[in-house]
Amino acid sequence: MIIVLKPDCTEAQLKHVTDSIQEMGFRYEISKGQHRTLVGVIGDEDKLRNAPLKAIPGVEEVMGVLKPYKLASKEFRQQPSIFDLGHGVKIGGGHLILIAGPCAIEGAEILRDIAVKVKAAGANVLRGGAFKPRTSPYSFQGMGEDGLKLLREVGDELQMPIVTEVMDPRQVELVDKYTDMHQIGARNMQNFNLLSEVGQTRKPVLLKRGMSATVEDLLMSAEYILASGNQQVILCERGIRSFDKSTRNLLDLSIVPNLHGLSHLPVVVDPSHATGRPDLIPSMSLAGIAAGADGIHIEVHSCPEKAASDGPQALLPPQYAELVKQMRAIATLMGKTIDPLPA
Amino acid sequence: MIIVLKPDCTEAQLKHVTDSIQEMGFRYEISKGQHRTLVGVIGDEDKLRNAPLKAIPGVEEVMGVLKPYKLASKEFRQQPSIFDLGHGVKIGGGHLILIAGPCAIEGAEILRDIAVKVKAAGANVLRGGAFKPRTSPYSFQGMGEDGLKLLREVGDELQMPIVTEVMDPRQVELVDKYTDMHQIGARNMQNFNLLSEVGQTRKPVLLKRGMSATVEDLLMSAEYILASGNQQVILCERGIRSFDKSTRNLLDLSIVPNLHGLSHLPVVVDPSHATGRPDLIPSMSLAGIAAGADGIHIEVHSCPEKAASDGPQALLPPQYAELVKQMRAIATLMGKTIDPLPA
Amino acid sequence: MIIVLKPDCTEAQLKHVTDSIQEMGFRYEISKGQHRTLVGVIGDEDKLRNAPLKAIPGVEEVMGVLKPYKLASKEFRQQPSIFDLGHGVKIGGGHLILIAGPCAIEGAEILRDIAVKVKAAGANVLRGGAFKPRTSPYSFQGMGEDGLKLLREVGDELQMPIVTEVMDPRQVELVDKYTDMHQIGARNMQNFNLLSEVGQTRKPVLLKRGMSATVEDLLMSAEYILASGNQQVILCERGIRSFDKSTRNLLDLSIVPNLHGLSHLPVVVDPSHATGRPDLIPSMSLAGIAAGADGIHIEVHSCPEKAASDGPQALLPPQYAELVKQMRAIATLMGKTIDPLPA
Amino acid sequence: MIIVLKPDCTEAQLKHVTDSIQEMGFRYEISKGQHRTLVGVIGDEDKLRNAPLKAIPGVEEVMGVLKPYKLASKEFRQQPSIFDLGHGVKIGGGHLILIAGPCAIEGAEILRDIAVKVKAAGANVLRGGAFKPRTSPYSFQGMGEDGLKLLREVGDELQMPIVTEVMDPRQVELVDKYTDMHQIGARNMQNFNLLSEVGQTRKPVLLKRGMSATVEDLLMSAEYILASGNQQVILCERGIRSFDKSTRNLLDLSIVPNLHGLSHLPVVVDPSHATGRPDLIPSMSLAGIAAGADGIHIEVHSCPEKAASDGPQALLPPQYAELVKQMRAIATLMGKTIDPLPA
Repeated sequence: MIIVLKPDCTEAQLKHVTDSIQEMGFRYEISKGQHRTLVGVIGDEDKLRNAPLKAIPGVEEVMGVLKPYKLASKEFRQQPSIFDLGHGVKIGGGHLILIAGPCAIEGAEILRDIAVKVKAAGANVLRGGAFKPRTSPYSFQGMGEDGLKLLREVGDELQMPIVTEVMDPRQVELVDKYTDMHQIGARNMQNFNLLSEVGQTRKPVLLKRGMSATVEDLLMSAEYILASGNQQVILCERGIRSFDKSTRNLLDLSIVPNLHGLSHLPVVVDPSHATGRPDLIPSMSLAGIAAGADGIHIEVHSCPEKAASDGPQALLPPQYAELVKQMRAIATLMGKTIDPLPA
Repeated sequence: MIIVLKPDCTEAQLKHVTDSIQEMGFRYEISKGQHRTLVGVIGDEDKLRNAPLKAIPGVEEVMGVLKPYKLASKEFRQQPSIFDLGHGVKIGGGHLILIAGPCAIEGAEILRDIAVKVKAAGANVLRGGAFKPRTSPYSFQGMGEDGLKLLREVGDELQMPIVTEVMDPRQVELVDKYTDMHQIGARNMQNFNLLSEVGQTRKPVLLKRGMSATVEDLLMSAEYILASGNQQVILCERGIRSFDKSTRNLLDLSIVPNLHGLSHLPVVVDPSHATGRPDLIPSMSLAGIAAGADGIHIEVHSCPEKAASDGPQALLPPQYAELVKQMRAIATLMGKTIDPLPA
Repeated sequence: MIIVLKPDCTEAQLKHVTDSIQEMGFRYEISKGQHRTLVGVIGDEDKLRNAPLKAIPGVEEVMGVLKPYKLASKEFRQQPSIFDLGHGVKIGGGHLILIAGPCAIEGAEILRDIAVKVKAAGANVLRGGAFKPRTSPYSFQGMGEDGLKLLREVGDELQMPIVTEVMDPRQVELVDKYTDMHQIGARNMQNFNLLSEVGQTRKPVLLKRGMSATVEDLLMSAEYILASGNQQVILCERGIRSFDKSTRNLLDLSIVPNLHGLSHLPVVVDPSHATGRPDLIPSMSLAGIAAGADGIHIEVHSCPEKAASDGPQALLPPQYAELVKQMRAIATLMGKTIDPLPA
Repeated sequence: MIIVLKPDCTEAQLKHVTDSIQEMGFRYEISKGQHRTLVGVIGDEDKLRNAPLKAIPGVEEVMGVLKPYKLASKEFRQQPSIFDLGHGVKIGGGHLILIAGPCAIEGAEILRDIAVKVKAAGANVLRGGAFKPRTSPYSFQGMGEDGLKLLREVGDELQMPIVTEVMDPRQVELVDKYTDMHQIGARNMQNFNLLSEVGQTRKPVLLKRGMSATVEDLLMSAEYILASGNQQVILCERGIRSFDKSTRNLLDLSIVPNLHGLSHLPVVVDPSHATGRPDLIPSMSLAGIAAGADGIHIEVHSCPEKAASDGPQALLPPQYAELVKQMRAIATLMGKTIDPLPA
């Protein structure tokens, strides 16, 4: 950690800075430049990070050198993590997953219809929301436990691992009984109590990036889950807030190689929520795989105009089937395997 | 609601659109222009909003005319809401509150010391965090119930209403026993289950704007609380994410008159979290009052360099006292009253 | 165009609105809904767009239906435009270009060295800056005309079409003598006089997206060039401003299919300026091609640590050669041709 | 300047780093920490800044300590600069200017009418555009030299200093003959050739912040003008791009004290372009003065619904007159003087 002093920092202030450093149990080195004096602090940066050194009079800037996350970092684990989702489906280290399904679980018949079609198209993980975080209190909020039961049932029938969102620490135990993978939505990426709670389960967690989360913010949220004991975290890019309203959010594909350079955790791309536009989802799915993603998450609905949630952004099953063919071709080129499901 | 059809929309598609509208129980009017055909849908826009009209083939755009929030809107209540926080302190409709205190409650002595000083300076609401939403799982997470007890105790002694953050639906009952006002942090602005939970208490709620929340997002989150039965919501601007890292966040003061034009709810400005810089907090506090804010929220610490959280952004008590003098002068000019506390 | 009236709009105000519409020579239709009255205006939306209808008392909102650009739009030309850059190199409609070269032209030897290597690697357009838009007045500003001569010379030798930036309307005539394609930098995307000036040349123009330009802003800037008579505009995504400083800018790949849906103009992706990070450039180049780009623009330098400008973001020639192999594989899969240069 | 080495940096790489530093004529200090090795470089940081140290293998990060601008900085001039605009009107160091007038100059009669009214209301600088940077090539582009003549004429009659925008380096000489102050628009903030050109005049320059310019970007653009020899630069905040479309742009008032802390140059606030909403302009003007601004720039039109440009954001003369009264009251409180014009 490096402390930059103000140009007018007095000797007394400098002494107070170095005294404070020593008091905290660290060593220091002073380096006087032409315009500024720097104090290098030597010791455990994790402890230093929490010390409000910037509040000391005479200090202009405190510059950290190390990353604040540990368990999520590549220093902690050099090789890409690979997680098993069940039914023979793995993610990470060359295994690409294709998640598909409706935004919300709306009923047995429609869910089964969509699930059969996405499986036939080539998806190997089934999604569906039972608890929906809706911006309006007057919108459909999901089927709750009844929805979870349906999703579990259809997943079992088709031998597909399932993923569903958990929104509230009080729901974790319930959802954990049914799901193969917990999803944490973008709006809850910094709901730290919820992160700790899913961190105490033993199911993989699909952690969606918040709408204004930096790469570091996302990894710090993963760190919450990892530090609670759950080692299976999958990061998910689903678009961030931007100034151009022609897409719902802005898909940031550069985060895929950026995360792969910093962390061993797999990265999924969700072009459905990122773009909100069926006409852009195919290109962005292919680009996601070319960028190195470990999974592609797409909402599919057999009748978008009757969907209870996010209909306008869903692909139709035939569109999805066509897209899977193209995704497979790029995946092969990128050296990725898509694990087949039992027939 | 207005439906804009694609230039190549067929007659069959148009018929499907109008059939769907009728099926939902609405009337329509077709207006054929030079380049585009429009379909005006007449009926309850709230019901229409949830219908995925945009997913119907041939539809290019669906444009809403009405706001999606009701109880938070000025149409619902024309006059500014005024809420009573206790100990004679009101907010809204000409009553300005000055909230001050440490970021986190760290101990009895330091809390009392700061509280006595901010009260003497002129603050009329005491703040302090017992549950802290920290981006790192390794940072100080707050004193929990012990902190709540201390804050209640000091508030009672000094006859100051208190405000503290609640982070988890499971904490609401506990926090409600101690606090005069619940604070919902920026990271939880769209934690809808938490909003519903505080919506079931009868204490005022200070709802902080999320880091990438639009004006409408903020009012929709307020609507969640209002729709749950709690009529006392206070909105709080605390800075949004921006591209310039010279301040912690970007303070958006235009949201103050913008919200006052759309809603009856009071608006507080928090320049501490918005700027993260003690040198900018005084100007931004004065600007906030000039912009019409109903409250100014400032973190004060008597020893920032030893603070357990956010020390570098805290004002020292004498700085705060000086600032209160200037805020009072502008408040008077703006026709605002700062309710005095009992001596 | 649709005018939404305020809920309290009086009959006199409504009459004033409709009188104004008639005065401008348009027809109108009034549609009274439950909560709002709408006035549909029928006539040439291009003329209407410039009328300040929103300033009329009683008007809440004016909603346009048509796009403000014409010549750049797909309505104007349904098929993708294909432009010839010389030496047998085409862009658009299935022709992919690979632009490479140093950020700045620094001297004959180093330029020739880099050019020979990028040609050998497979690039088919040579870039190099003679006029450099530097944020600091104290940085290297480019070699000017001497640089243009060198670039022309090396381009001729290697039979590669060249592209170089023009920054000032006064330079257009000079640059036009040497270059095969004009580049307009991101900072000049709304330098409308410069756009008009290159619009009067007959060379293709590579128009880079401004750092906070929307899709519509970019197409409106293209429209300036097209409306001045130059039909050969190539759009270029090079990253936008965002809140995460881990990359230089934020690459927005969704703009590639978004633009292809709105316009017939080719789209180039520049991952060098977008990411500023050699470790991310390869993935983002592949993703760009998978997203449907018509060109990939990459800065290459044989000694980045001695480069006069933007060294840290340059690829080394062997890295570029390796990347071209991968790009070719994806291009083939996407059905794209990379035109070969004469040997 | 501090160089942070990668964790796996070899001894050979370290030697290459230090050799390079010495080769450039600088001294260095190596400091080996627990996790990272740092190299402090001692010497003229301005020279170092242009060296692509980050491109050297083994280097993770290069952290600058000093600001890249000099003449614009407070280190260069401690006291606030005060500039004389003519007719007894000064800006800076306690002198507040009130700039008002129409967006575009549209004709003699309407300009005079507006000018007389804003002068009567209390404005002391007259604005009006003769060259208009319009996003559409089909919109009104301004009256050109005829407009400049009118503005000069009306300014002389009313003894008001005038300000008008210059868009093109080729116009600088012409505009300089007429105007008292050059305005550089937001879209041209990084049109470096234009900055150099106005830097060669001797008239004050009102430099508007670009839509995605950081504080440092703005000061670097000011540095271009200062380095060209013109010492009279006035900075202007006019709103930045943001994700919320309820206002045209996002007014960043924290930049006012932020700039005052870094620079001696005066700062003007333009709430008209920032908000685009007459209902928000008054509050934001008052907030601007409370934030410490040295000037408030407002567009006023006597018939907004017939304005040739930006009508919907203009204040009516009586609204402006009412606002000036309130601005004067806050200005007095802030210890600011508004220089009176000759009667």
